[in-house]
Amino acid sequence: MRALKEMSTTTNLTLDEFSQLCIPRLEKVYDFYLRDTPALALKNTMEYTLQNSGKRIRPLLIYATGRIFDAPLENSDLPACAVELIHTYSLIHDDLPCMDNADLRRGKPACHKVYGEGMAVLAGDALHTLAMQIIASYPAPLKSQRRLDMIATLSAACGPFGMAAGQALDLSIMSDKNISLDLLENIHRLKTGALLSACVELGRLSSNDDDELHQQSLKQFGDRIGLAFQIQDDILDMEANTELLGKPQGIDVKNSKCTYPLLYGLNQAKEKVQSLYHDALDAINMFGHQAQLLRELTGCLLQRKR
Amino acid sequence: MRALKEMSTTTNLTLDEFSQLCIPRLEKVYDFYLRDTPALALKNTMEYTLQNSGKRIRPLLIYATGRIFDAPLENSDLPACAVELIHTYSLIHDDLPCMDNADLRRGKPACHKVYGEGMAVLAGDALHTLAMQIIASYPAPLKSQRRLDMIATLSAACGPFGMAAGQALDLSIMSDKNISLDLLENIHRLKTGALLSACVELGRLSSNDDDELHQQSLKQFGDRIGLAFQIQDDILDMEANTELLGKPQGIDVKNSKCTYPLLYGLNQAKEKVQSLYHDALDAINMFGHQAQLLRELTGCLLQRKR
Repeated sequence: MRALKEMSTTTNLTLDEFSQLCIPRLEKVYDFYLRDTPALALKNTMEYTLQNSGKRIRPLLIYATGRIFDAPLENSDLPACAVELIHTYSLIHDDLPCMDNADLRRGKPACHKVYGEGMAVLAGDALHTLAMQIIASYPAPLKSQRRLDMIATLSAACGPFGMAAGQALDLSIMSDKNISLDLLENIHRLKTGALLSACVELGRLSSNDDDELHQQSLKQFGDRIGLAFQIQDDILDMEANTELLGKPQGIDVKNSKCTYPLLYGLNQAKEKVQSLYHDALDAINMFGHQAQLLRELTGCLLQRKR
Repeated sequence: MRALKEMSTTTNLTLDEFSQLCIPRLEKVYDFYLRDTPALALKNTMEYTLQNSGKRIRPLLIYATGRIFDAPLENSDLPACAVELIHTYSLIHDDLPCMDNADLRRGKPACHKVYGEGMAVLAGDALHTLAMQIIASYPAPLKSQRRLDMIATLSAACGPFGMAAGQALDLSIMSDKNISLDLLENIHRLKTGALLSACVELGRLSSNDDDELHQQSLKQFGDRIGLAFQIQDDILDMEANTELLGKPQGIDVKNSKCTYPLLYGLNQAKEKVQSLYHDALDAINMFGHQAQLLRELTGCLLQRKR
């Protein structure tokens, strides 16, 4: 890990330094909107889960990919903030009693446990809309067509052709232990992979890059880390304890949810993760030193313990 | 009413004929997407409430406003479909037990009563995203900046500065009978008015019109009909029986929700509605015969019984 965090030749920043530079930028974007929201209770509900921040992996994927193509940070701010809002809305809705019924999120009471289910549904909806509003209208030196491409990419990834479809399939087959590997991987790709993969494309769209080969390589990279990420989640869920993970351990087992490690065992699942990250790194070889931050971030994802 | 439905000088179509021309067009747009959704259960859930169609008032406002400026129907198709999807998502989420807890919608079981609460939340989310995806990517002879303006207008109207804020305020003050007229009107404007008002602007954005005075007049028109519409809803809710309205009569009274007719009485509420429609029609006087379809539609809204 130490080697992975050495000074990047692209920006002369370590991944930690880069993260400390970027994350406050995206938070500034949503603060700009939230401070003027006319409904105080809604604002508080939205902020509660936003401020109970995770690792901001998705925005970092966008910023780090943008660096490959020397994208201005002002451009990456828009999709970085939008994706974090989309991710946050999905967590709030996921935790509802009618979905995963989770009382804890990142070690704190889930949104609906604090503000009630109705306000949690509305806060999720409002974050969802705000994400699109930000890409459409926040000031940045981005061409209109580029903003539209971002909205098309993001909506394809989180709507009925991506995340929402994955969650629906997940909900439908929740108690079915006999599903095929193909179906399970398809659900993972839709539910978690699509949004993570979109981040990489959104990073590229923050720049002027128009090279199809670049797009394809990043798509391959995004696809691999997306699938790996969900399998890791399921491994961690089996292994971790409640304190470390911030949600009740084994919630998926309790809900009888079908997962990769449950179907194939922990060892095979871990090998799969290693192999997917290996393939992901291969896919971005072509970008050389320019991709150093993205490579470091990939290394951190591979090592993650929560 | 008969006089209002005479042949329009703009298009030589009555409002009924115009409606029969336009509505199948917007349905074709969402069908194009829904047929390829990878999750069958999600598709069915989304289609259930979409097909249990209401009067499609919002899309008609878009198409009719577009006709003032000779906007191609292909351009209006995008926001017309998007707004209907947004409206449908809001109905699905509104009916949930944690919100209005309504068992019936337009005389049929509410979405969550048929498909379960989890799938209803997801279907609402998926319709929400799809609306943005359609404006960003469905083929039409629309400039990129115009599409972006549409997304900015729509998201401002339905997110934390519009509909979602109105619903949150509504939820917060649900049982408070002592709220001011200003607050009540503000909630109405946000909850119902913002989206209706956005329709008029979206109709204008379907054309090449760039006249600020046009925009302001339409904004005034939209504001008036938006507020009138919500007060009418509350009047109808007090008056109508379950069969006619398609939802249990007096659900707002049962939930102790504060409404205009509850605060000021039926008569004063009806006068307010008349006066608002009068002001609305005044605001579009400048468009002459070009606004005939919009005027007919306004007349229908004034007369509506459900």
